[in-house]
Amino acid sequence: MSKISVAVLGATGPIGQRFVQMLEGHPYFEIEGLYASERSEGKRFGDTVKIRGHEFSEDILEQKIKVMDVAHISKSARIAFSGIPSDLAGPTESELAVKGVAVFTNAGSHRMDKRVPILIPEINPEHAESIRHQETYGGGGYIVTNANCSSTGIAMPLFALDRKFGLDEVFVSTYQALSGAGYPGVPSLDAVGNVIPFVDKEEEKMEIELAKILGGYSADGFRPASFKVIANCARVPVVDGHLESLSLKLRSSPSPEEIASVLSGFRSEPQSLKLPSAPEVPIIVRKEKDRPQPVYDALAGSPERAKGMATTVGRIREGNGFYKMFALSHNTLRGGAGGSVLNAELFKAKGLL
Amino acid sequence: MSKISVAVLGATGPIGQRFVQMLEGHPYFEIEGLYASERSEGKRFGDTVKIRGHEFSEDILEQKIKVMDVAHISKSARIAFSGIPSDLAGPTESELAVKGVAVFTNAGSHRMDKRVPILIPEINPEHAESIRHQETYGGGGYIVTNANCSSTGIAMPLFALDRKFGLDEVFVSTYQALSGAGYPGVPSLDAVGNVIPFVDKEEEKMEIELAKILGGYSADGFRPASFKVIANCARVPVVDGHLESLSLKLRSSPSPEEIASVLSGFRSEPQSLKLPSAPEVPIIVRKEKDRPQPVYDALAGSPERAKGMATTVGRIREGNGFYKMFALSHNTLRGGAGGSVLNAELFKAKGLL
Amino acid sequence: MSKISVAVLGATGPIGQRFVQMLEGHPYFEIEGLYASERSEGKRFGDTVKIRGHEFSEDILEQKIKVMDVAHISKSARIAFSGIPSDLAGPTESELAVKGVAVFTNAGSHRMDKRVPILIPEINPEHAESIRHQETYGGGGYIVTNANCSSTGIAMPLFALDRKFGLDEVFVSTYQALSGAGYPGVPSLDAVGNVIPFVDKEEEKMEIELAKILGGYSADGFRPASFKVIANCARVPVVDGHLESLSLKLRSSPSPEEIASVLSGFRSEPQSLKLPSAPEVPIIVRKEKDRPQPVYDALAGSPERAKGMATTVGRIREGNGFYKMFALSHNTLRGGAGGSVLNAELFKAKGLL
Amino acid sequence: MSKISVAVLGATGPIGQRFVQMLEGHPYFEIEGLYASERSEGKRFGDTVKIRGHEFSEDILEQKIKVMDVAHISKSARIAFSGIPSDLAGPTESELAVKGVAVFTNAGSHRMDKRVPILIPEINPEHAESIRHQETYGGGGYIVTNANCSSTGIAMPLFALDRKFGLDEVFVSTYQALSGAGYPGVPSLDAVGNVIPFVDKEEEKMEIELAKILGGYSADGFRPASFKVIANCARVPVVDGHLESLSLKLRSSPSPEEIASVLSGFRSEPQSLKLPSAPEVPIIVRKEKDRPQPVYDALAGSPERAKGMATTVGRIREGNGFYKMFALSHNTLRGGAGGSVLNAELFKAKGLL
Repeated sequence: MSKISVAVLGATGPIGQRFVQMLEGHPYFEIEGLYASERSEGKRFGDTVKIRGHEFSEDILEQKIKVMDVAHISKSARIAFSGIPSDLAGPTESELAVKGVAVFTNAGSHRMDKRVPILIPEINPEHAESIRHQETYGGGGYIVTNANCSSTGIAMPLFALDRKFGLDEVFVSTYQALSGAGYPGVPSLDAVGNVIPFVDKEEEKMEIELAKILGGYSADGFRPASFKVIANCARVPVVDGHLESLSLKLRSSPSPEEIASVLSGFRSEPQSLKLPSAPEVPIIVRKEKDRPQPVYDALAGSPERAKGMATTVGRIREGNGFYKMFALSHNTLRGGAGGSVLNAELFKAKGLL
Repeated sequence: MSKISVAVLGATGPIGQRFVQMLEGHPYFEIEGLYASERSEGKRFGDTVKIRGHEFSEDILEQKIKVMDVAHISKSARIAFSGIPSDLAGPTESELAVKGVAVFTNAGSHRMDKRVPILIPEINPEHAESIRHQETYGGGGYIVTNANCSSTGIAMPLFALDRKFGLDEVFVSTYQALSGAGYPGVPSLDAVGNVIPFVDKEEEKMEIELAKILGGYSADGFRPASFKVIANCARVPVVDGHLESLSLKLRSSPSPEEIASVLSGFRSEPQSLKLPSAPEVPIIVRKEKDRPQPVYDALAGSPERAKGMATTVGRIREGNGFYKMFALSHNTLRGGAGGSVLNAELFKAKGLL
Repeated sequence: MSKISVAVLGATGPIGQRFVQMLEGHPYFEIEGLYASERSEGKRFGDTVKIRGHEFSEDILEQKIKVMDVAHISKSARIAFSGIPSDLAGPTESELAVKGVAVFTNAGSHRMDKRVPILIPEINPEHAESIRHQETYGGGGYIVTNANCSSTGIAMPLFALDRKFGLDEVFVSTYQALSGAGYPGVPSLDAVGNVIPFVDKEEEKMEIELAKILGGYSADGFRPASFKVIANCARVPVVDGHLESLSLKLRSSPSPEEIASVLSGFRSEPQSLKLPSAPEVPIIVRKEKDRPQPVYDALAGSPERAKGMATTVGRIREGNGFYKMFALSHNTLRGGAGGSVLNAELFKAKGLL
Repeated sequence: MSKISVAVLGATGPIGQRFVQMLEGHPYFEIEGLYASERSEGKRFGDTVKIRGHEFSEDILEQKIKVMDVAHISKSARIAFSGIPSDLAGPTESELAVKGVAVFTNAGSHRMDKRVPILIPEINPEHAESIRHQETYGGGGYIVTNANCSSTGIAMPLFALDRKFGLDEVFVSTYQALSGAGYPGVPSLDAVGNVIPFVDKEEEKMEIELAKILGGYSADGFRPASFKVIANCARVPVVDGHLESLSLKLRSSPSPEEIASVLSGFRSEPQSLKLPSAPEVPIIVRKEKDRPQPVYDALAGSPERAKGMATTVGRIREGNGFYKMFALSHNTLRGGAGGSVLNAELFKAKGLL
């Protein structure tokens, strides 16, 4: 069976390069071209690499960057994986959908559109149905988004706990990695030895997107979940991996051990479908007193292809009527490119491609 | 008028060295000796320095470290400023009090003792009275503690808001600096590019100490305040300055502007007494979208002697029924040595020395 | 006596802001205006600050940035201190000189011009004479440069040793701070936990500029010194302070103690003239086994105004026929803005303003 | 064919853990036990892990640390891989050799012993013969060392250039990673945003060990090479990977291109023997203007088992009669545990085990 041809948009940025990493040797997908803005036209991909901890094949390193051209891409690729910065992504992605391309994007531009799902296959696979109502669906084109990186990291544990115990209030503070700001992103003079207590629009995104993701979908549209999210976001001098502190109000009173058991036992459709990028254990629970930590746990997960696709939870405690824990996930893998690749795998498995 | 003779205990550690910094050229106090454990006996103080951003005078740099000897200290010094690690401080400090020394300490050993105040002069100057009931008071000795560094940083804004609006719930997540762990403290292999979501006993301390500090005191003893604290503590690769995110439930509904106004207008006894180490403006409110930041704001405060003694608050917002903000204070100055020096200044002003 | 009116160019960058720091409360000079490119027009200076460890006065923080306008500046200011990026500085500085302004610049554009001195007052005060041959001198305008930050850091020790012992070969490797790359400068994703073994054109500059600085000047022009410089330059994740390793071939065979003595005893014209920004001890020699270090020694120097204007040398050793040592100086103070302010002070003292 | 049983000594430190990493799934060797000091007895290996970027198998993570016991080890293991700190290693390693164990060690204790080789299989495989003259050889025991981490990183390029062009003088400055100092090693308060221009005894080691490694061996003993090494060593805030600047005086005058060609074409006995941990290309030459960099190049090398076993060289230039370049290698893999594992593989291939 021949593989599905895919384009990577924004291939010179950290998210684009994580797309390339996830797509190398992929069983379903085959990279047709690496695209970026005119500034990068003709550059060798290997000369643009700025992600750590992954070695690309020689073949990929030697590829030349092409200029994004909707007409060209729509002829050559069934899927566009988009790592374009959000402020530029909107129109390009819409045009691609119009031309019949299935767009799986990390950009925020379309996340709150009426018929566009923010898809996390372990949580809301049924939201995929919403694309049938997108105007471009008849021509084969549509847009599917992954959540912002901070929401993704905690969405799976929140979902597992909400379903079992009922979620009332979520107090979350983030310790976000530098790679979440793209490249060049945060100047080193601001980052070294410092914390920046501001990530543009991130708190608003978390409060809105989590409600959409964990809410329902029917032919009438999306129905947001009802728990409250109170978010404080900050950037710390870490390269990869968003850590988040959680204080949760639940509607019932499980023990911390029950919480741990529900989280570590959580499995869903990507696991039963054995999607290639799905982690075997979506939520890894650590028992040590001082985990998860970005440098040790951001890449947790197996099999090999799913490294960086799990969320790691630790320090589950209760006190003063709240449940507390820390959660960590890889912001440019599960919280970025990996999320969209998993979405496309779900679409493939459901016959939507 | 001759100055009061003071001993610095634990002078080879970061807190001890901040004591020396605060005491250099002090108008009330004069350093009688620098004390540490036997391991450091006879070392030149200048060879032990490990704090950044302060240059000691030649005279101080050349002083030799002496071994802590209760009998000797009690003869030579009226006050002992203690930067001894908490696990060692308890008995030494008790012995000094028995021998008639006024002990102002950063150690946690005695903080929850019945008649020992956790004193922050802007908040609970009346708690100073508790020392009259300490057994050793008759002989001139007593123990006064400053709060742990994470509680101190937020205690002043919480107090100002509680008094004005009524405080119900405090959700706090900390971004704590490395200097809070002492020296050698956190190994660099754990710190560089990482966050450690665990600071030993810190969450428990915050939950208990804040209630004692903001609570009342009468002859019957301390009466804890009634608001709830839900704390998550983490260590980030920052040298000095604890940043903390706050989500607060108040009993009334001020606007964020009213909050800012109450905080920036807050003044108290140390300001009216013009204590030498008291900041003119105890709570500095920043309007920028991305402040406070440790590298820019940890040393905020004036006059010169009070640098690092203010708390800086920024990003005051409301949403979902909560008030959110970030607060920052210098963990080894206001949150450590500076706190105890200010306490001693209050005692001097009140005639308790 | 009224102060001399000065303009600061490039006031929103790290060098420009160090100019402002050096000029606050200066006994000779008074800031007339803060200038930058159109992008920053009208911004509050306080909102552009990106240097650490200095608190500007309220008065300065509130000043508004003006657009650089040669005609305007030449009417209002006798001196222009330029922190403009080198790729833009050349023409603006030339125009200012034509209009009669004395330009003291950190930019590299004019450093190798025939009649433009690279001035370090402790080393080559007689090079100041070269400005009399600049075409614009008749109208009161001229250009004086300070050296690049890596050369400055080692120029004083090299000069002192060359004069006394004869210098033959200089092997230097740099550990350069991030602030040397300006703002936004090095992206944090490249800087955190990394070393970048490349600083654009820096090695060439060191090899050429040091020869000009330590060489002679006569009416015929500059005569480069004859020792060889072999430089390897790298950027490390340090905020301020360039550290450099030196292996030197001398023409005689002093003991390391003699080397130390010559360095620590070095004094020159700025010291005898008591220029306000001149360090009392231009070369500080440390005896510890592990100094100088950027975080402890970059700001060495006294009096207060001259902090960051000394070079600190340590680990003086010999072996295999070479003398080895480490030298450190503050790259944006002595190696940038401070260097040019000291140059202007020398001009004032010599009646050249 | 059954595998050779090996013990790992010092298994709770960074070097010991890199031994475990290199030995997992090794085709020749099988871990018999993980040993450390009494303090760690009975600990789960997984609770001691402090290296980044490698995930151990569950089986390894669950192993319990045993106390080092010479009698026990000599009965159970043919080989001891030693990551014991140098100040403790000497006597234990000697006792093991007396008891018939083949000791491959990263410790410095025996490196300068008369009949003990500092072995780098690409450079001096014939030095292996020296063990036949060790007193314990008859009983099957002997000691083989790898070089210190800074020497190893540059030994291969120096050897390749010496053999081809004649090496006269080596000026080297190091940018050494924190992991080279072990654990807990450098306190974070000294490391963050700083450089420490001192690594205990490292310069002396480089000057002596490189001469022994690149020198000859005959029945009469080792004959040091004759080129000079002038070393300056410093520690930078990098986790893994020693970068080093080199300025070389050669005896002939190749072009930089010839240098690059000789380096990238270098192959030796481990490559022809296809030893499992030998990199296919021992010296990787990068053409980019700003490489090698620790975060991107420390793990260079293939096949998978040999990642971190190559040296990467970049920025090859000439000037002023010297050849300049930067070299990088992984200090705890090739420069530590990996070096000794490769040595043992050579011994296996040569029938010396």
